[in-house]
Amino acid sequence: MKVQIHISLKPGVLDPQGRAIHHSLEGLGFTGVNDVRAGRLIELDVADGMSDGQLDEMCQKLLANMVIENYRIEKLENA
Amino acid sequence: MKVQIHISLKPGVLDPQGRAIHHSLEGLGFTGVNDVRAGRLIELDVADGMSDGQLDEMCQKLLANMVIENYRIEKLENA
Repeated sequence: MKVQIHISLKPGVLDPQGRAIHHSLEGLGFTGVNDVRAGRLIELDVADGMSDGQLDEMCQKLLANMVIENYRIEKLENA
Repeated sequence: MKVQIHISLKPGVLDPQGRAIHHSLEGLGFTGVNDVRAGRLIELDVADGMSDGQLDEMCQKLLANMVIENYRIEKLENA
């Protein structure tokens, strides 16, 4: 089973990487971009019997920094 | 309009970050994880009139390294 973990910074947390990307996009001449936030995407290939609780525990213990980051677990069908 | 860009390494490209995460998960006692791939997630807040072509161009020129990475653009409804 393929699982995607979307990790993004909590609102209000400064995001220098996102600001740098935003600045570069403007430098390249792209207009109409209001905001950019950078995050991480972790793709797991796990056993089919893996429970939601175990996935949550992985995120909270290792994958995300719960002080400044939110995570969202998305299970991919047919993958 | 909120747009999420999912950037992941192409198959076959070595992913030391993913391997390190995999190793750490096993060290923490999580079993049933077959593979881990690390990628990036970039959230853009763009003007409603932004075309798909412009988003593609941003990805190809700046956001993704087309030699080793794939990208997928996801527009979020009601966001």
